[in-house]
Amino acid sequence: MDIPWEERFACRMEGVTSSAIRELLKAVQQPGVISFGGGMPASELLPAEAVREASHRVLTERGHYALQYGLTEGYPPLQAWIIEYMARQGIIIDESNVLIISGGQQGLDLTARLLLNPGDRVAVESPTFLGALQAFNAYQAAYVPMPMDDEGLEIESLEAALAAGPCFVYTIPTFQNPSGVTLSQERRQALVELAARAGVPILEDDPYSQLRYEGEHLPSLLAVDASRCQSASDVYQGNVIHVGSFSKLLGPGLRLGWVVAPAVVIRRMVQAKQGIDVHTNLYTQMVVHEMIQDGFLEQHVARLRVVYRERRDLMLAAMARYFPPGVSWTRPQGGLFLWVTLPPSLNAGELLGEALCHQVAFVPGTPFYAGECSPHTLRLNFSYPRPEQIETGIQRLGEVLAQALEPAVFAIEHEIASP
Amino acid sequence: MDIPWEERFACRMEGVTSSAIRELLKAVQQPGVISFGGGMPASELLPAEAVREASHRVLTERGHYALQYGLTEGYPPLQAWIIEYMARQGIIIDESNVLIISGGQQGLDLTARLLLNPGDRVAVESPTFLGALQAFNAYQAAYVPMPMDDEGLEIESLEAALAAGPCFVYTIPTFQNPSGVTLSQERRQALVELAARAGVPILEDDPYSQLRYEGEHLPSLLAVDASRCQSASDVYQGNVIHVGSFSKLLGPGLRLGWVVAPAVVIRRMVQAKQGIDVHTNLYTQMVVHEMIQDGFLEQHVARLRVVYRERRDLMLAAMARYFPPGVSWTRPQGGLFLWVTLPPSLNAGELLGEALCHQVAFVPGTPFYAGECSPHTLRLNFSYPRPEQIETGIQRLGEVLAQALEPAVFAIEHEIASP
Repeated sequence: MDIPWEERFACRMEGVTSSAIRELLKAVQQPGVISFGGGMPASELLPAEAVREASHRVLTERGHYALQYGLTEGYPPLQAWIIEYMARQGIIIDESNVLIISGGQQGLDLTARLLLNPGDRVAVESPTFLGALQAFNAYQAAYVPMPMDDEGLEIESLEAALAAGPCFVYTIPTFQNPSGVTLSQERRQALVELAARAGVPILEDDPYSQLRYEGEHLPSLLAVDASRCQSASDVYQGNVIHVGSFSKLLGPGLRLGWVVAPAVVIRRMVQAKQGIDVHTNLYTQMVVHEMIQDGFLEQHVARLRVVYRERRDLMLAAMARYFPPGVSWTRPQGGLFLWVTLPPSLNAGELLGEALCHQVAFVPGTPFYAGECSPHTLRLNFSYPRPEQIETGIQRLGEVLAQALEPAVFAIEHEIASP
Repeated sequence: MDIPWEERFACRMEGVTSSAIRELLKAVQQPGVISFGGGMPASELLPAEAVREASHRVLTERGHYALQYGLTEGYPPLQAWIIEYMARQGIIIDESNVLIISGGQQGLDLTARLLLNPGDRVAVESPTFLGALQAFNAYQAAYVPMPMDDEGLEIESLEAALAAGPCFVYTIPTFQNPSGVTLSQERRQALVELAARAGVPILEDDPYSQLRYEGEHLPSLLAVDASRCQSASDVYQGNVIHVGSFSKLLGPGLRLGWVVAPAVVIRRMVQAKQGIDVHTNLYTQMVVHEMIQDGFLEQHVARLRVVYRERRDLMLAAMARYFPPGVSWTRPQGGLFLWVTLPPSLNAGELLGEALCHQVAFVPGTPFYAGECSPHTLRLNFSYPRPEQIETGIQRLGEVLAQALEPAVFAIEHEIASP
């Protein structure tokens, strides 16, 4: 008898579907298509040479250690680096507060595994990171969406969400994916205090905060919570589970990130991770530690900031030039993304086909919503495309939008402009 | 308000505890202690130089690709290598049947995630790999243990287990962990046919089969199932989920393995993995592919076989010399482990303390049992300790056993032998 596999999949698999974005990205990897769709760092800036040198040193000096089983908690010197990195932000932790993970995504999966029973609610920004929805859906989460404005999630909707008794609040407070919006200092304070008062943990996803192109650095929610509850001598015992990542700073192919959280949470995550993948690639942990121990990360990120700022500015300028009236967008102070709102008559999902015919790709907004969604939104990435592609791609997208808004007018203008 | 974290952990975390072995291993990493406890390959044989050279080539030639996001399914040339590797065993598959994973353990977690609803039963060998129990416990599995003899799991107990309607059968058919036992050819055939007739999938965990030191190679359950159900032109669509691993062949620190399964299973695993860790470390996938594409793996494994056979033989000879009458053990034809049964009067867990006082470590058998357990069993690893350590360590363990069996007699003999 052959197995009727589809009937055998567990209930939890019902909510698990493929990421629309990842399927799209596979489709648009044809030459000629300019993609604003992914969330990828600029390939040409990935530090291949530094990794090569670090790998050489690690394997020459400690190769047998690097290829052997490691501790689930992580490579101790890399944990120590994270402790020091946090100390510079005023957060006092020790190794009991740190877990090295296989990329930031694993921090979302581990948190959901630890905290979510089927049907539990998670309070999420609206829109939110679709990878987080994928992680939480696998644990049969329900959602309480919280609308945002230019200063991030709105406090009234946060209060309403907390009253609904969520299992935790999930937020990307800085240069949010997909919106590009940053939570203001006042709201950070309010979020941390209101969540603590309600006894609701916060899952802070923080992959982008080092990629700031203008404005003042804002403290992470972890830092705000640490100053709320921390005495000078004790390690962190607060309400925030903080997920960091090397993906946008060094390279996503390395699959390396970290969780900082109260020791009781880390202890449980370590137990869970033993059954999931034993430990994070030790060789890669050692290579990254070797690379960054003497200040390379700071220099490299400074370079990323210059290049990405330029690309953001180029994209904003091109949008102002080529996009028709009635289209609006966010102006992020950092990160990789901006968020476009089309006139209500346009549906971003329907426009994507037309855009692909014009050899330009983006991600429609709908998959980023946990609740009611706005079909006339879309996300653009400005870190991956090269400057000339940004100019050309936005021009193409502007034409698609103009044509969709006023097909008749566009046809005439296009005819007049053509020789 | 501070979060009462312990009260917040999800129901599924109740069954999740730390691996006794891993905690033990942390405790015994003091100099002087000879450990037969872990399941580690010999550190001095880990191929650091080959990894160094491969890493250099990958980063020089395709560094920007290696550090960028990759496909969840895996690095296509490494998938192609697996397809070819399977073809040499007579198994016809294509890329829709292969998923590259972050070590074999992830294959166990993914299978449980796909197939297990809380309370579902898994049929497991008794004893079985404790990492598998850790993976399945997180999905609130129940168990149907199947006793083994020298030829692996007993067919009568398999029939009884299948009648209990398990979600799947989990087995390590070749050089099982912890017992070292190998399922005979006849029983492989019977297992595959009975499971197919009952419509129950088989999860085949196959990390050790290349490490054979004597006897004839036996086909994997995947190969047996493929010849049961496969027409010459179709790719594999059978009942086995096969998990392979580079951990014992190249190095566990690389965290690299693979799943071969029907396409419908792989598709669902890919969806699940997107939410878990996006994809397996691409840089490491490329380095390993670069290393093994021209026959390095075969040469390296041939070398491992020579060294590990020698260590197995040394351990067996030392046990015959130093262990008191009434103690018995398995004689594995390959793999990393053998399994010791003590006289009923001795409890392996209680002996461990005494053994550590004598600077020698092992793993008591109890954590390897899903059901009724035998407290007078223990596992010994012979791949990690060096030859002189095997001799000395087994001698020490023999003394501990002799003393425990006949404390008075041992004291007199010991006194006479001392100067």
